[in-house]
Amino acid sequence: MSEKTAYVPSTHTTPPARFSHGVRKGNLLQVAGQVGFLPAVEGQAPTPAGPSLREQTLQTFANVRSILEEGGAGWDDVIMLRVYLTDTAHFAELNEVYDAYFAEQRLQAPPAARTTVYVGLPPGLLVEMDALAVLD
Amino acid sequence: MSEKTAYVPSTHTTPPARFSHGVRKGNLLQVAGQVGFLPAVEGQAPTPAGPSLREQTLQTFANVRSILEEGGAGWDDVIMLRVYLTDTAHFAELNEVYDAYFAEQRLQAPPAARTTVYVGLPPGLLVEMDALAVLD
Amino acid sequence: MSEKTAYVPSTHTTPPARFSHGVRKGNLLQVAGQVGFLPAVEGQAPTPAGPSLREQTLQTFANVRSILEEGGAGWDDVIMLRVYLTDTAHFAELNEVYDAYFAEQRLQAPPAARTTVYVGLPPGLLVEMDALAVLD
Repeated sequence: MSEKTAYVPSTHTTPPARFSHGVRKGNLLQVAGQVGFLPAVEGQAPTPAGPSLREQTLQTFANVRSILEEGGAGWDDVIMLRVYLTDTAHFAELNEVYDAYFAEQRLQAPPAARTTVYVGLPPGLLVEMDALAVLD
Repeated sequence: MSEKTAYVPSTHTTPPARFSHGVRKGNLLQVAGQVGFLPAVEGQAPTPAGPSLREQTLQTFANVRSILEEGGAGWDDVIMLRVYLTDTAHFAELNEVYDAYFAEQRLQAPPAARTTVYVGLPPGLLVEMDALAVLD
Repeated sequence: MSEKTAYVPSTHTTPPARFSHGVRKGNLLQVAGQVGFLPAVEGQAPTPAGPSLREQTLQTFANVRSILEEGGAGWDDVIMLRVYLTDTAHFAELNEVYDAYFAEQRLQAPPAARTTVYVGLPPGLLVEMDALAVLD
């Protein structure tokens, strides 16, 4: 019950510091802040999908989801999805992409809670997300 | 134990996307980012209390609390309250309102932890909060 | 199981409002947002370590860690560390200090997940962190 396990999908770029993309302890699975980086290519710097918010958001969702799946979880287990945008003008488009994505995911349970705030992100990044899941 | 339940107080405005105002899975209840919107009025756009920080903060507290209550919880169950302000100049006033509010709530347990950071919020909004509660 | 306990290391400055530096309920320990304040001195205003990011970050780590320890936990129990910086230009230096610090801590388990975003902080503060730990 107290074991701590890290999840690192092979498609993911190496974290820029000593942290885990996903980690489980007890019945909680925490996904670290994910951005819209395309699947890692050996010897190449991390590159975001893009250039649109839509493309980055969908790639970010894919990156969060692959960590959940590595940990034996899925969107239905997520209780909180934190969304970080850089510009309040992106809110409407984010919500459109968000709704379309989760409609496709065919959730069996109610959707997660969410907080969206507007922060600074490294150059080229328009969106970041992290997620907290409760496992069965 | 693994069932996931959403809580949507009837007073709340419809979320602008496919997320839940509050959700419980296992013994965790997560409240989504709440702002100072007045109780929803059919056919009317969400309107923040105001215009002062004090009014918006008190309405935000009320909105968080009604979700906790829908989930059978209360302030004593909250372990973390995240506070998002837009201006560091609002910190002192936020703290005054915060202390007065929780004095009135007659907590039986120690207060929650808190993080306050300064971010961008949609026009007209001065404060946002989300909360994580552990149920018995 | 449902008892809620607050942790207030004697070295810590008094919180500026009615919140707890650390709180445990069930098997979760939440550490409130910590900054690089030096150990409290009676009758003196909170003073950050500094002036460098490195000094503030190390003091922030120490402040988080002492709360974890008061609660009978340590870095190995932490599943999420949220890092708030004020400037994207600080990311590389933060990561250097981060890696060196955790190398010294001799973790037995995988490192926590992490999200780093860029926000406003009160004047003089360059970094803030909060942490969620799962106890055994």
